[in-house]
Amino acid sequence: MFKHEKQLLQEVSVEKPNPNYAAMMQEQLGGANGELKAGLQYISQSFRIKDKKIKDLFMDIGAEELSHMEMVAKTINLLNGDKLNAQENTTGSVQSHILGGLSPMLLNASGSPWTANYVNVTGDLPADLLSNIAAEQRAKTVYQYLYRQINDNRVRKTIDFLLNREEAHNALFREALNNIQDTGSNKDFGVDENARLYFDLSTPGQHFKAPTPTQPSFNNPRRSN
Amino acid sequence: MFKHEKQLLQEVSVEKPNPNYAAMMQEQLGGANGELKAGLQYISQSFRIKDKKIKDLFMDIGAEELSHMEMVAKTINLLNGDKLNAQENTTGSVQSHILGGLSPMLLNASGSPWTANYVNVTGDLPADLLSNIAAEQRAKTVYQYLYRQINDNRVRKTIDFLLNREEAHNALFREALNNIQDTGSNKDFGVDENARLYFDLSTPGQHFKAPTPTQPSFNNPRRSN
Amino acid sequence: MFKHEKQLLQEVSVEKPNPNYAAMMQEQLGGANGELKAGLQYISQSFRIKDKKIKDLFMDIGAEELSHMEMVAKTINLLNGDKLNAQENTTGSVQSHILGGLSPMLLNASGSPWTANYVNVTGDLPADLLSNIAAEQRAKTVYQYLYRQINDNRVRKTIDFLLNREEAHNALFREALNNIQDTGSNKDFGVDENARLYFDLSTPGQHFKAPTPTQPSFNNPRRSN
Amino acid sequence: MFKHEKQLLQEVSVEKPNPNYAAMMQEQLGGANGELKAGLQYISQSFRIKDKKIKDLFMDIGAEELSHMEMVAKTINLLNGDKLNAQENTTGSVQSHILGGLSPMLLNASGSPWTANYVNVTGDLPADLLSNIAAEQRAKTVYQYLYRQINDNRVRKTIDFLLNREEAHNALFREALNNIQDTGSNKDFGVDENARLYFDLSTPGQHFKAPTPTQPSFNNPRRSN
Amino acid sequence: MFKHEKQLLQEVSVEKPNPNYAAMMQEQLGGANGELKAGLQYISQSFRIKDKKIKDLFMDIGAEELSHMEMVAKTINLLNGDKLNAQENTTGSVQSHILGGLSPMLLNASGSPWTANYVNVTGDLPADLLSNIAAEQRAKTVYQYLYRQINDNRVRKTIDFLLNREEAHNALFREALNNIQDTGSNKDFGVDENARLYFDLSTPGQHFKAPTPTQPSFNNPRRSN
Amino acid sequence: MFKHEKQLLQEVSVEKPNPNYAAMMQEQLGGANGELKAGLQYISQSFRIKDKKIKDLFMDIGAEELSHMEMVAKTINLLNGDKLNAQENTTGSVQSHILGGLSPMLLNASGSPWTANYVNVTGDLPADLLSNIAAEQRAKTVYQYLYRQINDNRVRKTIDFLLNREEAHNALFREALNNIQDTGSNKDFGVDENARLYFDLSTPGQHFKAPTPTQPSFNNPRRSN
Repeated sequence: MFKHEKQLLQEVSVEKPNPNYAAMMQEQLGGANGELKAGLQYISQSFRIKDKKIKDLFMDIGAEELSHMEMVAKTINLLNGDKLNAQENTTGSVQSHILGGLSPMLLNASGSPWTANYVNVTGDLPADLLSNIAAEQRAKTVYQYLYRQINDNRVRKTIDFLLNREEAHNALFREALNNIQDTGSNKDFGVDENARLYFDLSTPGQHFKAPTPTQPSFNNPRRSN
Repeated sequence: MFKHEKQLLQEVSVEKPNPNYAAMMQEQLGGANGELKAGLQYISQSFRIKDKKIKDLFMDIGAEELSHMEMVAKTINLLNGDKLNAQENTTGSVQSHILGGLSPMLLNASGSPWTANYVNVTGDLPADLLSNIAAEQRAKTVYQYLYRQINDNRVRKTIDFLLNREEAHNALFREALNNIQDTGSNKDFGVDENARLYFDLSTPGQHFKAPTPTQPSFNNPRRSN
Repeated sequence: MFKHEKQLLQEVSVEKPNPNYAAMMQEQLGGANGELKAGLQYISQSFRIKDKKIKDLFMDIGAEELSHMEMVAKTINLLNGDKLNAQENTTGSVQSHILGGLSPMLLNASGSPWTANYVNVTGDLPADLLSNIAAEQRAKTVYQYLYRQINDNRVRKTIDFLLNREEAHNALFREALNNIQDTGSNKDFGVDENARLYFDLSTPGQHFKAPTPTQPSFNNPRRSN
Repeated sequence: MFKHEKQLLQEVSVEKPNPNYAAMMQEQLGGANGELKAGLQYISQSFRIKDKKIKDLFMDIGAEELSHMEMVAKTINLLNGDKLNAQENTTGSVQSHILGGLSPMLLNASGSPWTANYVNVTGDLPADLLSNIAAEQRAKTVYQYLYRQINDNRVRKTIDFLLNREEAHNALFREALNNIQDTGSNKDFGVDENARLYFDLSTPGQHFKAPTPTQPSFNNPRRSN
Repeated sequence: MFKHEKQLLQEVSVEKPNPNYAAMMQEQLGGANGELKAGLQYISQSFRIKDKKIKDLFMDIGAEELSHMEMVAKTINLLNGDKLNAQENTTGSVQSHILGGLSPMLLNASGSPWTANYVNVTGDLPADLLSNIAAEQRAKTVYQYLYRQINDNRVRKTIDFLLNREEAHNALFREALNNIQDTGSNKDFGVDENARLYFDLSTPGQHFKAPTPTQPSFNNPRRSN
Repeated sequence: MFKHEKQLLQEVSVEKPNPNYAAMMQEQLGGANGELKAGLQYISQSFRIKDKKIKDLFMDIGAEELSHMEMVAKTINLLNGDKLNAQENTTGSVQSHILGGLSPMLLNASGSPWTANYVNVTGDLPADLLSNIAAEQRAKTVYQYLYRQINDNRVRKTIDFLLNREEAHNALFREALNNIQDTGSNKDFGVDENARLYFDLSTPGQHFKAPTPTQPSFNNPRRSN
């Protein structure tokens, strides 16, 4: 069961309305590496998981991502201000001005609709955890790109918080993967000779040797204390 | 902020696994009139609403729809059983068997991915409320279609509960619309002569007269007590 | 059978070319609440309807919406002018300048392609009629947003005509719904106790009471004369 | 302006309901080479055309394709019969049984929604005419595939009619292209030396020589009488 | 088997970075008539072809189109420069600045994702060849539109090369079609009386006579030497 | 520049045609974790990479994935056999029988079109490498699912080869990530206190402690020899 509390996970504010920033922030509401994608990916993955610890982790982080989505949406809402003005909205999507009455929308920065094609669910824990680690690293990256292009210090503070949370999730997913070695798609990893070949198909140049694969596991997701 | 409780809004069960039913139930998880669509539509609309009562209503129902989504997903998970078998899955999408390891997925019954194109957000309260009333009526309709095609009595019980909740939401949205008459797109409704014409473009036959439009409001969304 | 007459349903004109307005108007040609969506929704719904009066109504309005589509398209064509210039097209989609040789296209204002995911067809008359009423209210809303952002008085005149027609359709669909009470998904509406609960899942605050649902029907879609 | 006549362009019937055939026929209602695509492609192209003869041709054929769409839709409706039964619908999409109440829908045979990405509009007459010729040849091809897989003689009769109409359109578009030689993208065709090279990038084997391109024009689209 | 050589098919350069041009050029990387579409269309068609000459032709040109894709991508990369700046990117998609770290992306000029809905594969050689001829003519057209809107002479040189290659492919596909007359969907073309009708559905005006269709074949795809 | 050799990377065969297997194998041709996705993801990422070693690695593997795509496509082609028969194709998509003339198509097992929304490109090397590692693990997982559901030993041999190659790529991408520590999004990882919090939002239960994140790096992607 999902419950909603009107208090945000962390309060947000903006220095002043800036519709072009609003369009840019849409990426993390309705884009490929945004908060809705993260939330729905982890929640969807959790539906079948039997490992109670990881199921709980996915739901903890999934609910947090939905809470981030709400923070991003409120930020967009404040940035959109109160004036319908598609003509001055020269950056990216104009859908908020034409279709949405200045509402935050489930679209990316250029107006493409959110799609479940962004979501990776395989029912295999190692694959899903690696998908999540990658998703968190991409989300951090997009927040870094936004941070550099936004001057509003209050928006930057929100981005900074969200970016740091993606790092926390990233580390937790790595820890979880290390905990379930030798399960699912990690079993019998790299035991066949075909897994030890290198096809040098782009020429000239080969800079890596043929691998001797082992299952993915991470160094130090948690610093030794 | 969103929080998750591991207890379902209402417990679900199935008589026995039935992967073809699972594929059919996918429609209400990841389809055009499904629970995810409903939840995200109301939550998205709430982001900009200033009317506190209606904002609260949208978030109450939005959180409930996410909780329904969880019930539908668990039902699908149980119906999917434990055997990957795309070849016996002759009804609709086979993605759970090939891509998802029997997980519930954000796809409709035929495998099309959920898309934000299903979601209507205009920033105008009368338009959004009418969208929601229509969405609830469609959701009820799809549950009726599923009910008739599913013999599993436990699944039917879940469908029956969810169907009834859509009726409750429908009535609440109608009550809310009646409370905000003469606002937004309901203002100045039908005052121009062009709103009073009828173009009889499909021939032969005309069965309606030219209208004299007034703003939408509902009869008795709540029975007088 | 569909026939086309070269005369528009109502003639359109523009004061002068304005490619940014053209991009904005694309929303009502190829967008989620645009004329193509309306036309194809009603026509698609009509394919199975047995009630001859409502089937005729849907086809009358469906054909009118296709005729509106033509008016919107001609307006866009005139606004696009004769100069390919994506660089000066700073509002929304640039597809007309790069892909379409200044043609009107089946895309929304930000360039997303029209999709049948916009279309609601359930085969249930009450649900379809409610979908149509909501669609008309949203279409009116988008025309209001466009009207406010467009200074060209001739374009405004066209928008005003189209907006009023949506009001007429809205009223006609409401009248039709009132005529078919107690049919389809309107039968047995709200009779179960689960339809009378309220889950207060967003806290703090509850502003609506548990409903006692009845089937949707409208007040006065037609003023008493 | 579009008008609708209740009489079909040509009447359709079926020997008996056959929901699996219905799902297959969906391809020509809502698929990539179906009637809606054809109709909307030609109508969209016509919006900007200045050549009155070709504009008229496109609208004549566009209106005919919408009339074909209606014939295909009625055929699907008859084939769908009156029994919701997704479990027995083992061929392709089950959306009519689960979402659409047995209505014909704007989806292809496997349930993917119709999209404007199917539509080619360039604003260049030679390119648009070649797109249309190709579209008609593909539509014929799909009808041939359907014809071979459908035993119902009445459905076959409808398919045969529609297939022949695609041939007629094909020839008319070719005639139109021959009439506008040396215009648009056909001007200065193949005059540069780079247009006369052949890159033999798939090896072994080269079976064509370097070309000496001239603009596309067709032999005998109309037999000499 | 595909191999990659680091040398481009033809070297590209730009006079100076120009992110707005970069967004425009995206159309020919990830758009409906772009190089990826062409490459994947011909390669996909080749998978089932039995005619060895045409299979080789499709793979020769398919590999060349992938090589063009690489040229377009490198051009975009150079035009994007080194500064993330969505706010100054006022033309079309901002995804490279927000999501892609200035990378070329598989999106069109307005940010819509590449989709296999752009690709036409029928398994019928005449239909596929006509699709390819049309695709090449459209690709030429888009390059002409881009050429006119881009002042950078080095980019123009690249566009000019690519445009000429489309003409070469166009002519080769026409030659191939002429070589396989009376096969596939070209057999029994236009033999039925229904193929000889003209429905004058757009009024007033009829400018073409009823056709007497013959199978598509081209005049002089190769100039007599 | 891309070149094609007619010899497959490794020859494929099937015991006998099996159209239902063909539909299932479509997942790895045109699906979310299929070979086209892998190839285009790595090739797209390579367009902007400055690190020559990793750029070469991406192009080596990208070209190999396209070569895998060709193997999968040929397998599908053989499994499709020579008989159009949508009615017996009870597993997943029927598009090959209705639209494609038995051709392999760029669709997944249920008929959804391939889309660039599957492709992750961020321009940040750590994020892209993590995306690739996850993609390879998911691809292995899908091959495992297919392997279990396919009895044809020749198809199984092909799947086994491809599955092993994904393991090799996985290991190579991990090695590459370990080689570029402290660059891009891996810099300053987890240094803020907000990165060290745990929000226990799903109750009851918390099974992980607050993390102390460090940048992602892998254990032993290459066994010590």
